[in-house]
Amino acid sequence: MKVAVLGATGLVGSEMLKVLGERGFSADEMVPLASPRSSGKAVQFSGREVAVQAVCEDAFEGVDIALFSAGADASRKWAPVAASRGAVVIDNSSAWRLDPKVPLVVPEVNPDDAKLNRGIIANPNCATIQAVTALKPLHDAAWLESVSVVTFQSVSGTGRKGLDALTEGAEAVLQGTVPDAGPYSRPIAFDVLPEIGEIGPDGISGEERKMILESRKILHHPELVVNCTAVRVPVFRGHAEAVTAVFREPLDPSGACRFLEGAPGVSCCRDLEHKRYATCREAAGTDDVYVGRVRREGHKSKELSFWVVADNLRKGAALNAVQIAEILEPGLRGMKQASSLG
Amino acid sequence: MKVAVLGATGLVGSEMLKVLGERGFSADEMVPLASPRSSGKAVQFSGREVAVQAVCEDAFEGVDIALFSAGADASRKWAPVAASRGAVVIDNSSAWRLDPKVPLVVPEVNPDDAKLNRGIIANPNCATIQAVTALKPLHDAAWLESVSVVTFQSVSGTGRKGLDALTEGAEAVLQGTVPDAGPYSRPIAFDVLPEIGEIGPDGISGEERKMILESRKILHHPELVVNCTAVRVPVFRGHAEAVTAVFREPLDPSGACRFLEGAPGVSCCRDLEHKRYATCREAAGTDDVYVGRVRREGHKSKELSFWVVADNLRKGAALNAVQIAEILEPGLRGMKQASSLG
Repeated sequence: MKVAVLGATGLVGSEMLKVLGERGFSADEMVPLASPRSSGKAVQFSGREVAVQAVCEDAFEGVDIALFSAGADASRKWAPVAASRGAVVIDNSSAWRLDPKVPLVVPEVNPDDAKLNRGIIANPNCATIQAVTALKPLHDAAWLESVSVVTFQSVSGTGRKGLDALTEGAEAVLQGTVPDAGPYSRPIAFDVLPEIGEIGPDGISGEERKMILESRKILHHPELVVNCTAVRVPVFRGHAEAVTAVFREPLDPSGACRFLEGAPGVSCCRDLEHKRYATCREAAGTDDVYVGRVRREGHKSKELSFWVVADNLRKGAALNAVQIAEILEPGLRGMKQASSLG
Repeated sequence: MKVAVLGATGLVGSEMLKVLGERGFSADEMVPLASPRSSGKAVQFSGREVAVQAVCEDAFEGVDIALFSAGADASRKWAPVAASRGAVVIDNSSAWRLDPKVPLVVPEVNPDDAKLNRGIIANPNCATIQAVTALKPLHDAAWLESVSVVTFQSVSGTGRKGLDALTEGAEAVLQGTVPDAGPYSRPIAFDVLPEIGEIGPDGISGEERKMILESRKILHHPELVVNCTAVRVPVFRGHAEAVTAVFREPLDPSGACRFLEGAPGVSCCRDLEHKRYATCREAAGTDDVYVGRVRREGHKSKELSFWVVADNLRKGAALNAVQIAEILEPGLRGMKQASSLG
């Protein structure tokens, strides 16, 4: 298997290489790709250094799986090229997510969709992945009718410039000087910004629209009512979400915890010993989607509120993409071996 | 008028003295009170230094209005004492808020309740004050049926030890060392904690319960359905809230903004020029409740989402208490003058 990673020097690209190595993904050859200005750099993969190549048409020759995390423009340009050369692209950008011919996959939720790809599979938005991973076992149990999600999203979602803006901004504030806004509309250090992506004429931000539209597609649930407020918070890594879900059937907190505990990729923090909830800092560097503070308010037997945390760079991006690759790998390898025997 | 401030050396107490001075509250005599360990200290009031006295029964002699911000235990002990000596206590703690004989007042919402006091008036919880101030004009226009509030609450709500925990914790993280949790269950620097007050057996935290119960009392709306997730964020001053409100009557975002623009104490950030929303850092040190990002999702004509920000030490505590004192002052002064004429 020949695997390429486009955007290999970025925050998510580096994490993709790391997760592929950690999970022992059987990549016989690894091709790290980036824009020409990064070529010549080297990245780490499975304990060795690999030179980064500038992305070009020929770079995808013979590639079986290409993981993309280089932004929507690069994806729109290079994903069709890679696919036409026979690769399956797993794309972390927003470019293809809502294309009706492109599967949008969270392996714990809709793994079979991955196999319906025509060369491109979209990796959902980070905040959406952790929400639907937590909601899926509850939806299976009681049918989700509507959900309200308020996000607390870390600056690593903005890439290295987000991390720098928070570090430098926090230093500036602590030293009594004025912080720079960096990539944000206003400084993020010691403040919270309810603006992720462009705010449309209807008042809904880009990130909120992703949560609304992607959740419906991943859950195969076009009637799902989704309300979202997406907020950037001064946290380096890990996203948290306050979720309130309304179901068609009654579901109590203990029952919900039992379903969550049996669900793949989910860790339920239900008691004092498990500290009732996880935080962004605790989730950073780990793989699970942590659900905590599961509760009901008043007497509404069909409504639950809970707190969901995950590492946005791992489950929210790199890990989810690698899990999709793991779904594809046996089939691709099998076809390849059978063809070479022929 | 003789005015006392109990807890005069604390974060909210200092702000009470500041706000009384700024607004030219006609205090002929100011008596700053605190626990015995603070007596001997001096505080600033209207440009002069005033010595802090240790609280005791006699300290309330002749006091007309006493502003309390020294915690629930001190309030339970001293408010009845002050009231029995003829003072009206405006208490910022949670001690009396849900007592059916004690008015719970936000001057923009239920000013007339203040006059029904029997010597004690409760100042609501910070997060509740800004929510109901924003909701009142919309409730008047379209009747609020249910509301969901997710809070982003700054560390100044925990007093000086909260500010210290954030400053020292942020310094520790930036220097690569492990931060202390300080007054929180886990370190607050560069993380968000969905835990304010004790989490009860039903899974609801103390702060969330305040939002639920106090909103109903202030709005005189016992059937109001309130859902809340209260979250501590690494912000020094100013609380933000993501609110979704469901009304009985249709209400569109433009209509809501018109009602908000005409409402006392509210500033509506509705367009690009007003930057669409305020942040905690921007609200710090100011008096208004800022409502922004007013929007509707999908086709639900009776539901609105918006973002509410206010300075938790001013409108959320000191300013609201002083506004209550301003409601009482003319009547108290009039009675006093008439009595002295007799």
